[in-house]
Amino acid sequence: MTPELGVCYYPEHWPQSMWAEDAAHMVEAGLRWVRVGEFSWSRMEPEPGRLTFDWLDQAIETLGAAGLKVVLGTPTATPPRWMLDRHPDMLAVDENGQPRKFGSRRHYCFSHPGYIDECVRIARIMGERYGRNPHVAAWQIDNEYGCHDTTVSYSAPARQAFRRWLAERYGSVEALNAAWGNVFWSMEYGDFDQIDLPNLTVTEPNPAHVLAFRRFSSDQVVAFNRAQVQALRPLTDAPLLHNYMGRILDFDHFEVGADLDIATWDSYPIGFLSDRLEADAAHKAAFLQQGDPDMQAFHHDLYRAVGRGRWWVMEQQPGPVNWAPYNPAPLPGMVRLWSLEAVAHGAEVVSYFRWRQAPFAQEQMHAGLLTPNNQPAPGLAEARQTAEDLAALGPLEPVQARVAILFDYPSDWAWATQPQGAGFNYFRLVFSAYRALRRAGLSVDVVPASGLDDADYDLILAPGLATLDDALADRLRAAAKLTVLGPRTGAITADFQIPAQGRPGLQALNCDVALVESLPPEITRPVQGGGAARHWVERLTGDAPDLLTFEGGTSALKGTDQLWYLAGFPDEDLWDRIVEMAAQKVGLTLHPMPPGLRRRETATHDVLINYNAHSVEWNGHSIAACDVAITRRNPPGRG
Amino acid sequence: MTPELGVCYYPEHWPQSMWAEDAAHMVEAGLRWVRVGEFSWSRMEPEPGRLTFDWLDQAIETLGAAGLKVVLGTPTATPPRWMLDRHPDMLAVDENGQPRKFGSRRHYCFSHPGYIDECVRIARIMGERYGRNPHVAAWQIDNEYGCHDTTVSYSAPARQAFRRWLAERYGSVEALNAAWGNVFWSMEYGDFDQIDLPNLTVTEPNPAHVLAFRRFSSDQVVAFNRAQVQALRPLTDAPLLHNYMGRILDFDHFEVGADLDIATWDSYPIGFLSDRLEADAAHKAAFLQQGDPDMQAFHHDLYRAVGRGRWWVMEQQPGPVNWAPYNPAPLPGMVRLWSLEAVAHGAEVVSYFRWRQAPFAQEQMHAGLLTPNNQPAPGLAEARQTAEDLAALGPLEPVQARVAILFDYPSDWAWATQPQGAGFNYFRLVFSAYRALRRAGLSVDVVPASGLDDADYDLILAPGLATLDDALADRLRAAAKLTVLGPRTGAITADFQIPAQGRPGLQALNCDVALVESLPPEITRPVQGGGAARHWVERLTGDAPDLLTFEGGTSALKGTDQLWYLAGFPDEDLWDRIVEMAAQKVGLTLHPMPPGLRRRETATHDVLINYNAHSVEWNGHSIAACDVAITRRNPPGRG
Amino acid sequence: MTPELGVCYYPEHWPQSMWAEDAAHMVEAGLRWVRVGEFSWSRMEPEPGRLTFDWLDQAIETLGAAGLKVVLGTPTATPPRWMLDRHPDMLAVDENGQPRKFGSRRHYCFSHPGYIDECVRIARIMGERYGRNPHVAAWQIDNEYGCHDTTVSYSAPARQAFRRWLAERYGSVEALNAAWGNVFWSMEYGDFDQIDLPNLTVTEPNPAHVLAFRRFSSDQVVAFNRAQVQALRPLTDAPLLHNYMGRILDFDHFEVGADLDIATWDSYPIGFLSDRLEADAAHKAAFLQQGDPDMQAFHHDLYRAVGRGRWWVMEQQPGPVNWAPYNPAPLPGMVRLWSLEAVAHGAEVVSYFRWRQAPFAQEQMHAGLLTPNNQPAPGLAEARQTAEDLAALGPLEPVQARVAILFDYPSDWAWATQPQGAGFNYFRLVFSAYRALRRAGLSVDVVPASGLDDADYDLILAPGLATLDDALADRLRAAAKLTVLGPRTGAITADFQIPAQGRPGLQALNCDVALVESLPPEITRPVQGGGAARHWVERLTGDAPDLLTFEGGTSALKGTDQLWYLAGFPDEDLWDRIVEMAAQKVGLTLHPMPPGLRRRETATHDVLINYNAHSVEWNGHSIAACDVAITRRNPPGRG
Ligand SMILES: [Zn+2]
Ligand SMILES: [Zn+2]
Ligand SMILES: [Zn+2]
Repeated sequence: MTPELGVCYYPEHWPQSMWAEDAAHMVEAGLRWVRVGEFSWSRMEPEPGRLTFDWLDQAIETLGAAGLKVVLGTPTATPPRWMLDRHPDMLAVDENGQPRKFGSRRHYCFSHPGYIDECVRIARIMGERYGRNPHVAAWQIDNEYGCHDTTVSYSAPARQAFRRWLAERYGSVEALNAAWGNVFWSMEYGDFDQIDLPNLTVTEPNPAHVLAFRRFSSDQVVAFNRAQVQALRPLTDAPLLHNYMGRILDFDHFEVGADLDIATWDSYPIGFLSDRLEADAAHKAAFLQQGDPDMQAFHHDLYRAVGRGRWWVMEQQPGPVNWAPYNPAPLPGMVRLWSLEAVAHGAEVVSYFRWRQAPFAQEQMHAGLLTPNNQPAPGLAEARQTAEDLAALGPLEPVQARVAILFDYPSDWAWATQPQGAGFNYFRLVFSAYRALRRAGLSVDVVPASGLDDADYDLILAPGLATLDDALADRLRAAAKLTVLGPRTGAITADFQIPAQGRPGLQALNCDVALVESLPPEITRPVQGGGAARHWVERLTGDAPDLLTFEGGTSALKGTDQLWYLAGFPDEDLWDRIVEMAAQKVGLTLHPMPPGLRRRETATHDVLINYNAHSVEWNGHSIAACDVAITRRNPPGRG
Repeated sequence: MTPELGVCYYPEHWPQSMWAEDAAHMVEAGLRWVRVGEFSWSRMEPEPGRLTFDWLDQAIETLGAAGLKVVLGTPTATPPRWMLDRHPDMLAVDENGQPRKFGSRRHYCFSHPGYIDECVRIARIMGERYGRNPHVAAWQIDNEYGCHDTTVSYSAPARQAFRRWLAERYGSVEALNAAWGNVFWSMEYGDFDQIDLPNLTVTEPNPAHVLAFRRFSSDQVVAFNRAQVQALRPLTDAPLLHNYMGRILDFDHFEVGADLDIATWDSYPIGFLSDRLEADAAHKAAFLQQGDPDMQAFHHDLYRAVGRGRWWVMEQQPGPVNWAPYNPAPLPGMVRLWSLEAVAHGAEVVSYFRWRQAPFAQEQMHAGLLTPNNQPAPGLAEARQTAEDLAALGPLEPVQARVAILFDYPSDWAWATQPQGAGFNYFRLVFSAYRALRRAGLSVDVVPASGLDDADYDLILAPGLATLDDALADRLRAAAKLTVLGPRTGAITADFQIPAQGRPGLQALNCDVALVESLPPEITRPVQGGGAARHWVERLTGDAPDLLTFEGGTSALKGTDQLWYLAGFPDEDLWDRIVEMAAQKVGLTLHPMPPGLRRRETATHDVLINYNAHSVEWNGHSIAACDVAITRRNPPGRG
Repeated sequence: MTPELGVCYYPEHWPQSMWAEDAAHMVEAGLRWVRVGEFSWSRMEPEPGRLTFDWLDQAIETLGAAGLKVVLGTPTATPPRWMLDRHPDMLAVDENGQPRKFGSRRHYCFSHPGYIDECVRIARIMGERYGRNPHVAAWQIDNEYGCHDTTVSYSAPARQAFRRWLAERYGSVEALNAAWGNVFWSMEYGDFDQIDLPNLTVTEPNPAHVLAFRRFSSDQVVAFNRAQVQALRPLTDAPLLHNYMGRILDFDHFEVGADLDIATWDSYPIGFLSDRLEADAAHKAAFLQQGDPDMQAFHHDLYRAVGRGRWWVMEQQPGPVNWAPYNPAPLPGMVRLWSLEAVAHGAEVVSYFRWRQAPFAQEQMHAGLLTPNNQPAPGLAEARQTAEDLAALGPLEPVQARVAILFDYPSDWAWATQPQGAGFNYFRLVFSAYRALRRAGLSVDVVPASGLDDADYDLILAPGLATLDDALADRLRAAAKLTVLGPRTGAITADFQIPAQGRPGLQALNCDVALVESLPPEITRPVQGGGAARHWVERLTGDAPDLLTFEGGTSALKGTDQLWYLAGFPDEDLWDRIVEMAAQKVGLTLHPMPPGLRRRETATHDVLINYNAHSVEWNGHSIAACDVAITRRNPPGRG
């Protein structure tokens, strides 16, 4: 597979006279793909039923004629203003009961049947017009599901749909009452139609109620996406994809991804470090203009799994953005670094967002490869350099990693529903495990539970997995030499109850959890020999041998041959110890990394990525600030 | 009086087959009381008028037959879902105008007449069925009034009731306009029906308006409770009680308590330290797993007053809870310590919440004496140990303290209405005074103004009392050798005006207040000789002699023979000086305590309570970490 | 011009029997002006159409007879309760869609035609009654427009008016779509009636939409004020004025001021330091009881411009107030200092708020010159001393400053709409420039762009001016020897687009901006030789010579003969360097000041103002804590 570059382009923003020159300029800069169309419904259909696709015909023709492959987006993330006159109740409703109005984007509720029909209609019209167009080489459906907290809606259509969903899931309201424990606080329902959405309750609603609503909300995204997939499939052979957004966890990306051919994501390293990552001030300052050294890699590995091997970066930050609390510029070299890093993780395409900075509207302060006045912005030269680097590098095959992280969206919903301690969240826990593997210089796979069956890993880390049954524990045993569970693994059933007979799946391990505690961030529970737990600690029982113990003597890590259980949220030192112990047990070689330097293998190459603003020496290599060092592996092999 | 232990139990959560074994197990653990029923309306009456009390008959019989005394709760804190179909407007409304929906508990407005009727109906039905049941030894009405901020409701029924309440209080709208000073900003009303609730105003509403609404809201709680009292009284001779919640100040507990026979409260020391107490980070860390050393004691003393001597702990934290920001486990010994401390303060019963941790719904992470899987949790052994300790100790009589704190709910409403400085609140001020008495090793009474008449104290501290007239000043003089007033004592009338002729009640003291200042938390006003005021300072005038002066020379404490007036919010050192000066004046012996060690007397015993995680030496005693030392007083006597 | 003192007085709050004595007392204290009436609509017209002006006739007569000049206020900031029965939809609506209810003040939407008619009606009635009254020497219209965030309303009448305003501004909806760039995200409208107000959108609305709404909202204030001006003009020859509030930027004060004769403002130095000024904790502690040393001066200079030379302080803080987070008392001397400082800046009148502290309603904790019990409060003696000082000083003429700050309200709206970095706002930037000029001991003018035409300055600082065209750049060149532009100057068009051909106005300077960055507050970009930029940095291009460079070599300041452009938000050191460089270039003498000491010239005097709580030596003068030193200039002249 030979990685390629692309760019997001909005012909509707510019006079037609500029298109041909833009296309030629893209090709000259080494770009091969161009995404168009995904926000342009008001130009495709300015009034209901009046279709005006001429401009798009022409744009695709112009781009395609220049040698670019087109990704065509369905415009359903931005319904035009007239849509609201047809469907006044189509807006999502926030948790305070307020409709989320027209005037930006994503102003729709995933549960509105009328709007879904409109989306199918426009997708079908586009499929009929462009499905066999030779320049249209891929289709994007909608844009960034879940961005701006748009997955969860408290609208009347959502309430109706939720009741139907519950009726289907539980069969009878008595079964629902039992599954949720509604006898508690007399919350029992007599009819599905009595069930409201879990917002604006006096104190916290039943977590079973909330988790069901979160599952439902995710299913609505899956169904929304599927409706367009079904409209397009008969009309085109080009692959279908969606562009996911970083650290959006409100719906199950694996389930949406199962209906699509390629997963893509939108990578904004500097914005993400600032607005969606737990890190201390020193870390945020050190990587202010580079982004977190593991955040992009994690998402690359995640979307490789979501796309079942096929994935892109659809939007790559090319300069300062407009939407984070603070928006500094990337250090010189970072745009290229991010691009090559993606490729090292197996990206088929890295596509910059956007070609030319728009001089108007919400994103006018979002950099492009060109300035609004059509001058080269700093990102353009780095994109061109990346294209040359890729040409020199030739085909790359992704590596099969020896270690994996188990990632499970419903676990995030569960712990968001009931964190029990203010600092606890699923992503933070999983990401801390991922970082430890990366500090050890390992290439990592992210896998969903559904992806375990043909897996063959040395080591799987599965912290925080909310629900674990014996069958899944068995599948983990089959998938890896060693799996590290805990904390909080298997703590609830799928209906948010504490399992009736102790945590299933741990019993083979001869371990159970007698007590859990959450802790303020400044409190630690030190482990004998080094490291500590923070935020979360469990008191373990059972005959499994203690592998690590807290000061005071209670178990910090218990284990049998193939399963270990971890009794707290580890700090960095404790994770490092655990990874080292595990590696020793399964015979894995570690490559400890200096801060800010990261390593990723392909089947044929070793890639060293220096996120630091200074050069680093490692293992005989000297890697400049914000630079990447790629060497051929000899012999090629597994991670 | 021989203190006993009890537990809260939810037979409706468990198969009937477990009840007898549970009852036997309770008795075996030393428990004598069991509370049932208070959240089970949907099981008593699953549809309107269809009564299904068989299970409860059976549960009471099973528990009673095992030798347990039953506290039976009316289930009015958790109206079933069908109640909303009958009374769609029964929900409380938050200050943003949003109904507070079904789906948790306490989803009712205290002013809804239809719902009050339903509560009277179910109370009467229960009274008729169980009023003479020999096992039912006490009745609890509703549960934790005011929890989840449910006292104050901005509903339409509340508005109607408020208008009626105002018409009754003021007689004419002209009188109301005058009393509130509505001429200010042209806020005058022409009719009671023009008066709205004081939410969502452009800037802050008239404090007189707010305080009236707060008084009204408290009265609605009193009336709500009284309706059930009146329903039950003719039907039972068992005592009636309510379980108040810690630091809930939104209604006048003394007034509710006047209609009841026993006051009980729900004591969650670790949660309270974390979520409702001003303290610095070091203090919160030192007592993270023990709770604040004075918080429980204060409430014990408060509810002894509310119950006019008769009081219980109805819910005693037995392990980690689920609702605080962070939920660590109590240190070993603390469950017993908290229990014995309550007994030392005169509790008749200490009842643990709950028997067995529920595996479902909102409180599934709230520990019980047993785990969800029916294993002993750490609290069970401590409860059993406490039962043995109590048996060994025999009968205890409460001491009559020599010092008291005056506590007044309307003062809290007044200063919450107009804090004037962001750090100022009534509870914080009163509690700082209470802490100073406890640091001096004194046993303390809490008294309402209405309780002064047969009092005979050496010293009363009455800081922050909003309204003081000559009559009350005289009653204070009669009740104690010395009363310390101020800051902010007598600063407003009952209608929230500045008293027209200077602060009444202070005039005999020859003291008035010329100016008040509020200060940011980092600013102090040092007192000559040590200590300082913070948050709040007053500039005093008048001929009363200065007992302490601020640096710069203005008065910090002025006093005559029986009344002293304090010109600021004292820090710990200043409080300690004042208590020492007062003790010297009235001939009171102090017993200065080391940090974290506290002392409480009964008529016959001295009890030393060590909240520290380390042992403490004091006065020849060595008290282990989290332990209690009880010695016989010789001779027995007053505090 | 001989400065005079005055006071705000509420005869309706006090028995008529007190009025004459109050009036005599005012005169005796040296006061010459008294403001009345502005909140008393419910006493002028207790029911619709029933006019009851007798009391006001009498009050004006009593005050006038004592020798006081009366400022009479129209009461339109406090519509009486009955007004809502006539105009139920007159309330403003907050951004969450909630009406902002009756019960305090300013409860009206500026766009409600019915309420505007009522205001015109009452103004005309008052004008007819008092327009020729010899005691009424000035008229105040309404009170503190914009206080409590009342300029921007999301009501239905506002929406209607906004649509009309847009139709007038843009002519066609196609023109609006183009001007706003609504093609972005398919936000195009088909009709003006489809345009909603920009609240409650899913993510941020189009900044062009927001800025248009902010311009509209300002225009509505101008129109509201103008309606009363037009009602009063034919009926009186007395000057018309309004009292603006500190750091209220939501409408264009220059435009409102253009319809009036005098600008006045309400000066609360201690409250403002605490609740509306960016400063570090040490600064806030050092000036806790004095207020910021530059905040009052800035507003004095601003309102001198708004009033085209004629301006007052209408409300001068006389002691602790009630509305800031913390409300300490002014240090002794400060009330006099603030008064004399205002006079030094050219105030015609300084009027204290209020005569006697009200014992009731919202402001009962706001000090007056008298206490509620009619005793002298500390401010009274300082007012009297000020009157004596003024008498001794005799007439003063304001100086013509040699340096100016360009101030532009729409720039504040623009950067509030799209700060791009969390710490960036227009006032903060402009005020940092103002402070630098004051640290240099300069007297400063504030000028609007419209005021440049007959200006003749040595130096103008114009940071952050959102929109700059060639014509304005030319006018700046004509108005000053040197103008310092940047950062962010000329960055957008009036319709919030990035200018199509680079920043107009900068091109003559041979400078453009290639990239902008916003930075977290802890990050600095040091400049070679000292000082740094914070919050905001730009990367400049163009041939203009570099006057300062950042470490790393990019331009920090570029300039040609008459225009300099600054590439970041300077810290204090950098501002000081720039002011020094500029002064050297234009031949301006600086007078560097020690911290907390400030200097203001009149045409005839030098005034040194010591905001410190300690005495300061400077240039041979010793100025006591909180004191003012006034010396005659020899010869008199320009600033
Ligand atoms: Zn995007
Ligand atoms: Zn409870
Ligand atoms: Zn004011």
